Amino acid sequence: MSDFDAEPGHYGYTFGGREAIGEVKPGIPITLRTLDCFGGKVRTVDDLPSRVCEFPYLNPVTGPLHVQGAQPGDTLAVHVVSLTPSAPVGISSTFPHFGALTSTGLTRTLQAPLEERVWLYDIDLDRQTVRYQARNSAYAVDLPLAPMLGTVGVAPVAGEVRQTIVPDVHGGNLDTPLLGPGATLYLGVNVPGALLALGDGHARQGDGEVCGVAVEVAMDVTIVVEVISGVPTGTPRLETDTQLVSLGAARPLEDAFRISQEDLVRHVAQLTGLDLLDAYQLVSQTTHARAGNVVDPQYVMSGAIDKRYLNGAVAYGGVHDRLITLGQASLSG
Amino acid sequence: MSDFDAEPGHYGYTFGGREAIGEVKPGIPITLRTLDCFGGKVRTVDDLPSRVCEFPYLNPVTGPLHVQGAQPGDTLAVHVVSLTPSAPVGISSTFPHFGALTSTGLTRTLQAPLEERVWLYDIDLDRQTVRYQARNSAYAVDLPLAPMLGTVGVAPVAGEVRQTIVPDVHGGNLDTPLLGPGATLYLGVNVPGALLALGDGHARQGDGEVCGVAVEVAMDVTIVVEVISGVPTGTPRLETDTQLVSLGAARPLEDAFRISQEDLVRHVAQLTGLDLLDAYQLVSQTTHARAGNVVDPQYVMSGAIDKRYLNGAVAYGGVHDRLITLGQASLSG
Amino acid sequence: MSDFDAEPGHYGYTFGGREAIGEVKPGIPITLRTLDCFGGKVRTVDDLPSRVCEFPYLNPVTGPLHVQGAQPGDTLAVHVVSLTPSAPVGISSTFPHFGALTSTGLTRTLQAPLEERVWLYDIDLDRQTVRYQARNSAYAVDLPLAPMLGTVGVAPVAGEVRQTIVPDVHGGNLDTPLLGPGATLYLGVNVPGALLALGDGHARQGDGEVCGVAVEVAMDVTIVVEVISGVPTGTPRLETDTQLVSLGAARPLEDAFRISQEDLVRHVAQLTGLDLLDAYQLVSQTTHARAGNVVDPQYVMSGAIDKRYLNGAVAYGGVHDRLITLGQASLSG
Amino acid sequence: MSDFDAEPGHYGYTFGGREAIGEVKPGIPITLRTLDCFGGKVRTVDDLPSRVCEFPYLNPVTGPLHVQGAQPGDTLAVHVVSLTPSAPVGISSTFPHFGALTSTGLTRTLQAPLEERVWLYDIDLDRQTVRYQARNSAYAVDLPLAPMLGTVGVAPVAGEVRQTIVPDVHGGNLDTPLLGPGATLYLGVNVPGALLALGDGHARQGDGEVCGVAVEVAMDVTIVVEVISGVPTGTPRLETDTQLVSLGAARPLEDAFRISQEDLVRHVAQLTGLDLLDAYQLVSQTTHARAGNVVDPQYVMSGAIDKRYLNGAVAYGGVHDRLITLGQASLSG
Repeated sequence: MSDFDAEPGHYGYTFGGREAIGEVKPGIPITLRTLDCFGGKVRTVDDLPSRVCEFPYLNPVTGPLHVQGAQPGDTLAVHVVSLTPSAPVGISSTFPHFGALTSTGLTRTLQAPLEERVWLYDIDLDRQTVRYQARNSAYAVDLPLAPMLGTVGVAPVAGEVRQTIVPDVHGGNLDTPLLGPGATLYLGVNVPGALLALGDGHARQGDGEVCGVAVEVAMDVTIVVEVISGVPTGTPRLETDTQLVSLGAARPLEDAFRISQEDLVRHVAQLTGLDLLDAYQLVSQTTHARAGNVVDPQYVMSGAIDKRYLNGAVAYGGVHDRLITLGQASLSG
Repeated sequence: MSDFDAEPGHYGYTFGGREAIGEVKPGIPITLRTLDCFGGKVRTVDDLPSRVCEFPYLNPVTGPLHVQGAQPGDTLAVHVVSLTPSAPVGISSTFPHFGALTSTGLTRTLQAPLEERVWLYDIDLDRQTVRYQARNSAYAVDLPLAPMLGTVGVAPVAGEVRQTIVPDVHGGNLDTPLLGPGATLYLGVNVPGALLALGDGHARQGDGEVCGVAVEVAMDVTIVVEVISGVPTGTPRLETDTQLVSLGAARPLEDAFRISQEDLVRHVAQLTGLDLLDAYQLVSQTTHARAGNVVDPQYVMSGAIDKRYLNGAVAYGGVHDRLITLGQASLSG
Repeated sequence: MSDFDAEPGHYGYTFGGREAIGEVKPGIPITLRTLDCFGGKVRTVDDLPSRVCEFPYLNPVTGPLHVQGAQPGDTLAVHVVSLTPSAPVGISSTFPHFGALTSTGLTRTLQAPLEERVWLYDIDLDRQTVRYQARNSAYAVDLPLAPMLGTVGVAPVAGEVRQTIVPDVHGGNLDTPLLGPGATLYLGVNVPGALLALGDGHARQGDGEVCGVAVEVAMDVTIVVEVISGVPTGTPRLETDTQLVSLGAARPLEDAFRISQEDLVRHVAQLTGLDLLDAYQLVSQTTHARAGNVVDPQYVMSGAIDKRYLNGAVAYGGVHDRLITLGQASLSG
Repeated sequence: MSDFDAEPGHYGYTFGGREAIGEVKPGIPITLRTLDCFGGKVRTVDDLPSRVCEFPYLNPVTGPLHVQGAQPGDTLAVHVVSLTPSAPVGISSTFPHFGALTSTGLTRTLQAPLEERVWLYDIDLDRQTVRYQARNSAYAVDLPLAPMLGTVGVAPVAGEVRQTIVPDVHGGNLDTPLLGPGATLYLGVNVPGALLALGDGHARQGDGEVCGVAVEVAMDVTIVVEVISGVPTGTPRLETDTQLVSLGAARPLEDAFRISQEDLVRHVAQLTGLDLLDAYQLVSQTTHARAGNVVDPQYVMSGAIDKRYLNGAVAYGGVHDRLITLGQASLSG
């Protein structure tokens, strides 16, 4: 049983503009259920999303949750303890005028859209695989299960309300494969209680989410959060056991890239005491730059540095390690 | 002793527009020496590139080499057998109005340029490391040596001549860390003999070559080539033991991304017999999308798929494996 | 005396998320007062905006106004009858990391910002001029007064709330010099009553609003609106006595361009009965493509066609001409 | 009879890489003939360009011409005295994966191309019109004849050779409607004699050349040139009787915009003595920013300021006025 299920009233389609459905205490792991990006409405290959879903009501997020003690100017650390698909089948599709290899509502052309097609992926939790099965041939292949959350965010600044499909400085539809179990996401807090919400679980996803849709699946989620008081975070950041990551969300893609790398340079400078140019140089020779999603309305690039090059410097006072410990206790409990 | 050294007359600053300096036979490994991107003129931290180098004569490539039997419409496979820095010190720098986190001659602003600064990296071949040493503090850290060639290309189509710093469909300044020992690069041939040239060795480079300059070093290079007759290649491709890769070169960055992913989708479709949409789906859930360089005048993105998802399909008739065998023989010989 | 002044409570910083301050009847001209983009806080060249303004609370709009009878799926036509600066001095400035010829929060670099500087423009209503006076020399020149509204919009769809500085399909900070007296703006209605708000008056502006700030001034505004029932409008459109215009808002700039031209092609096809390709051809040989603003967070391009090439076809049932007549009556009244 | 016709041997498909076909003396008007962009191969609506033309051999330019006395570091001023279509019919078309409202070889998608269709425009020199005639309906309308040269350039720097379809700092396929009779184009000289070539006449063109093809026509051209010794020009500039213009060529479109505006700011600062920020301000409130072409491989934006705001400052020592006088003498002669 989840602390927060995904029944009507417990999910929505915006960050901001909605009341908290419950409260989270820092340091206390919670469980919740998220719907898939289609709200569960695509069940067979004949359920074309453009017919069974109502636009723009896609990508529901569970929440928002009021985080005890979170205040504007703080940083919210959200540690993903575990992610388990709660359905036996993941779903993907193409979608008219959506995705990276088609014209879209923003990159408009006069061409006809691509065919809309749905793929179903059998999920095998024992073998930790999802099975790709072509629609127009017998070709099939097992891919590793690599669960992640596509969408995690807080209420935006200055009263803005954004659709959940938009990634920006408040988080949102970040769609980075790095946001799986064991990762800690850092988001700046804009309103009292932060108003955290999350969803859009992916059984797996390639970089860039090229066709616009990952292997989408409802998810059982365990997270544990902490509030870092008085420490602001502008650009969303992420930490794994081996990497520090900055997440740039913007269009065009080079701006997402620039944001991620500039923030990484500044973060490294702050942690190591390097001046800005020395940090720029260190990052330049070590960074990993991967696409998050390259799907309208905004793109995401991740810029990562291996922590081993930081000579022991620790981000955000070591909160990542503390949250791991708290999370593992909850799993074994 | 190299088959081709990097003495005057053996290198140049363009692809196209120059006569072959020698000939290469398919299947016979050759060795050559390449200069660093500064032509060896930056030797101390006081040798600011904008003063000691003459613009735009940067990024010299050794060659061009006439490849026996290569004809327009063929594909040239260039396998990198080994790369060994031929200098004990690698060099990096910032550069006025060049790099990803500064305005440039194309992304123009009215702001002053960043400080021009040079960094020297001691290279330790035994430990296989390069040593980052900050300029304005005592901070230092060893980074893995990860040699690669920044610039490999052939003469362009239709009589065009391009500066070596430009990456495009003829190859050129691709700047992907994937182009190291063990990798095979596939380039379409535009003129008889292909006119292969290469240079811009990097002791290592982060994705995106963010500051515009990697750890630059002269390099001893062993390659072995093969000509795949009658098989054209549009977008440059690359193969490693585990991945098939397409390399998109363009501005803006999303176009480089789109080219790399579109070509990968078409390549996967051709190899597996999947229709285009089924291949789009498989690539979407598996691709790795990394920045090559995000430095003017054109950007590079790589799109890669793990070969294990291709159910045994083999690219370009297995030339990669044959070239590995030929190359290893030359190393042990 | 205005029907709606710009006193506290009558203006705000978002489209959406606020209650109507009053009602507008279709066909009945109204007057209102708008603040300048600084909210009147910049009065001398020493009032640097980054010091006297509180971010992101810039660009106040008067409203929102509930338009009688407007329903989702309708189009709201807003005709600008007259614009008169209500202050004797217009203000412009540079702004740290804002504008087209500087790095910004999205196009991030590591460079220092440009100097922040304020310019004052004397406005001469008799001569219909504004006077440019250099800050660092005696250079001065009179420029034509060409008043326009930078920001006009309605509440966005699906509960979104956007800062007034963002242009998008709901209108917002469109910043096109075409939106002056005599122009009619067409916006799709998303919520009952549309919730129209407007502000950001410019005494004049160059294409692109290059430095990020026009000649900003509080404005006395007369408008008259009409509701076109059951006719939706996606992309904002505009009509003058001689042109039909589509306004694309997006990043990067080519997407704003594509949106404006694609919408213009579709509009021309609908009005003339041309098929899409024939309309594409006619637009290609006749369109005017000008930059609106090229300032973060989204850019605007206008695509215009001269009405004389439409062989008498009339947009939106001739509402533009009707509103001109109604507006002129109010002026002479 | 032309001084230079467009017979085989007198035209080509690159800037750079070709020998001069003749010499031009500064101050002496010359006449020449240019082919249309299809090389005259499209004559009926059934001559689809992708079938009758051989790629990439499009956009032939007449020349190159050796300009007496031109040296690297000089500026070449090319004044267009007159342009007269030398065929009675202009031609336009769509083209597979070419144009602004379709995916292209750079902005790649998996979608099918648009239909390829040819339009013929009757040219009436007496009425100074071209007649648009729809292909799939009876719709027709006369448009003003507004002749211009799409492609004018010199040999690039550093031995580069570029296809004529590419606009860049050497000029090339600038495609701005401003380059008509009465305009003077300023190009930096890179090689002795400059090696001027020109072509791609348009009977008229909308901003952006949206479908990728203007109303193409062979042209009788009269030009007169002057060499401004020791005055370099980086970004191409243009002067008309009323405007000074800078032409930015790049991708993405905002970089073309930035280049044009940055160069205009610097030009205005130099001419007026304003400091850079004061010039930035003056340009911001006065500039005209129009799309040249938004068609791959590079885009063009023009940034223009009305000369009347420059308080009498004169560009390039008044060469524009001198060339007008020389040209008019030749016309009346």
